[in-house]
Amino acid sequence: MNIILDGMGGDNAPDAIVEGACLAAASMPEGSGITLVGKEKVLRDSLSKLKYHGDRISVVNADEIITNDDSPVKAIRRKKESSIVKGIEMVKSGEGDAFVSAGSTGALLAGGLLILGKIPGVDRPSLATIYPVIGGEPSIILDAGANAECRAVNLREFGIMGSIYMEKVMKRKDPTVGLVNIGTEEHKGTTTTKEAYKLLKESNINFIGNIESRELQNSVCDVIVTDGFTGNALIKLTEGIGMMVLREMKKRFTADIKSKMGAVLLKDQLLALKKEFNYSEYGGAPILGVKGVVLKSHGSSDAMAISQTILKAIPFVENRVVETIGKAVADMAVQDSENAGEI
Amino acid sequence: MNIILDGMGGDNAPDAIVEGACLAAASMPEGSGITLVGKEKVLRDSLSKLKYHGDRISVVNADEIITNDDSPVKAIRRKKESSIVKGIEMVKSGEGDAFVSAGSTGALLAGGLLILGKIPGVDRPSLATIYPVIGGEPSIILDAGANAECRAVNLREFGIMGSIYMEKVMKRKDPTVGLVNIGTEEHKGTTTTKEAYKLLKESNINFIGNIESRELQNSVCDVIVTDGFTGNALIKLTEGIGMMVLREMKKRFTADIKSKMGAVLLKDQLLALKKEFNYSEYGGAPILGVKGVVLKSHGSSDAMAISQTILKAIPFVENRVVETIGKAVADMAVQDSENAGEI
Repeated sequence: MNIILDGMGGDNAPDAIVEGACLAAASMPEGSGITLVGKEKVLRDSLSKLKYHGDRISVVNADEIITNDDSPVKAIRRKKESSIVKGIEMVKSGEGDAFVSAGSTGALLAGGLLILGKIPGVDRPSLATIYPVIGGEPSIILDAGANAECRAVNLREFGIMGSIYMEKVMKRKDPTVGLVNIGTEEHKGTTTTKEAYKLLKESNINFIGNIESRELQNSVCDVIVTDGFTGNALIKLTEGIGMMVLREMKKRFTADIKSKMGAVLLKDQLLALKKEFNYSEYGGAPILGVKGVVLKSHGSSDAMAISQTILKAIPFVENRVVETIGKAVADMAVQDSENAGEI
Repeated sequence: MNIILDGMGGDNAPDAIVEGACLAAASMPEGSGITLVGKEKVLRDSLSKLKYHGDRISVVNADEIITNDDSPVKAIRRKKESSIVKGIEMVKSGEGDAFVSAGSTGALLAGGLLILGKIPGVDRPSLATIYPVIGGEPSIILDAGANAECRAVNLREFGIMGSIYMEKVMKRKDPTVGLVNIGTEEHKGTTTTKEAYKLLKESNINFIGNIESRELQNSVCDVIVTDGFTGNALIKLTEGIGMMVLREMKKRFTADIKSKMGAVLLKDQLLALKKEFNYSEYGGAPILGVKGVVLKSHGSSDAMAISQTILKAIPFVENRVVETIGKAVADMAVQDSENAGEI
């Protein structure tokens, strides 16, 4: 297996990316490797600095960089020599099995759509991200912002794709799927959520019904389904509150000598608590529904986060998530036309 | 001024409600009073238990109770002897100036709409709630769940009504208004948020543009505008994370002897932190856009929360929020027709 890694994406590129590649290379199964794509000299310098002398990491040159300021679709169309375009092209051609990047989410989505294309039968590919649960098992939430406006059939697709990812990559058995809504009763919510409830209930996944966002921190389900507008708002709010809690604790626990002494005694617990707010260890965010494996690592990823994302790509490829999604949506289409025929 | 108080609503009724009335009565301006509505015997017993001997609290009998299990619209239509229907009727008839309840939000909204009616020109009355900011000034967020599906004009209305409430009741000068979106740029979001951005920008309020939910904890604006689906999800997530953080801290800080000693030294800081997660002191949630003053107190309100909500009703009435909203939406309608005429 060969994982293509964007050497130029993210706030800490290229050094953290290259270091992440070295970390991952050390624990990847035999016969597999990593291809770094980006400015060759820069990447080779970084490898030398890290004193990497193995043969599992290769470098492919790409002179251009797509930034967060670029218009994603334009950038994919015009910056043919960018690390993102070249990297995704390598997945398409079969030179690579998966593409991992901490670069522009929009460009990765556009690249997935324009270069790899949608899996036949999928209407809206989706960005799925890990939803961190303090003191509990993380869930996955989709859509995380790729599709601000969604129809009920899109929400069903998200449920199916998320369920397959959680089973095949995150190793959850018979993953539970919940629909974000403003009440738990079936009749609650918008026209779209009401229809989505029905479709999800009829589909071949472990749908547990509506969930209120109050419950998200209780590991209430493995797959959290919602439209990209709400999903994005929930993820960003969780990040915002996490930062605020840490900031406020720091302020209060250093307010005076007595508090500082207390904080010293609680040091281990405070560090553990802080770590729970940091979910980089769970690996990246998959783009589900495109014909190939693309994983986005957080823009502020450090080497450990990059390494975890690379390692998540392995079961993603090995357990044939893309093919499984293709089969599931095809089955769903058959079921839909059977249902339509019954009317 | 006479505040009508629902004696039967909320998890802690009637005792916490009656105690809240006593607390508020002690700090209300001269010549004002509170009328408790509910089962007369129960309320009088509660007043006796509290040894209340003042003349500011009166009791009006209402034999029925609307619960959270009742269908709101049906309950308002059929339970004519309920404390909510009788209380809102008293505001309509002028016997009372405001109605305060910790009962069913749905029934209060339905009661406001069916009994008081909408302010002419208002399309969608809205439930606005305090959005708690840890270590900072609270904002108000609307819609909090009354309108799951909104058009752009509704979001503009929310901005106008929220702005007036924050100025007249919460005493913010020239309150800032932000629109929840998945990015700060004008072109981001759904068709509805893009159109709402334009309308809010043209309107006569202090609109600061799109805000991401990550910023909500940074007191980024006084009035947070969003549709009822997103608003409800954001509020409930904030509550859920708050509870989870407190639970996790408790678990960690009692894990062993050393941690317990640390927690003892940090006791004051921990209590202060816990208090910041509790926003009952800011008073209730107004229903804006109906022809009368209705304030909802949290279902789990204690006496202090009830008292704070009652006291919030005073500037709500005195500063003529209802009339000001009426004037603002009428002005907006004039501006709209002028704009339409220009085309």
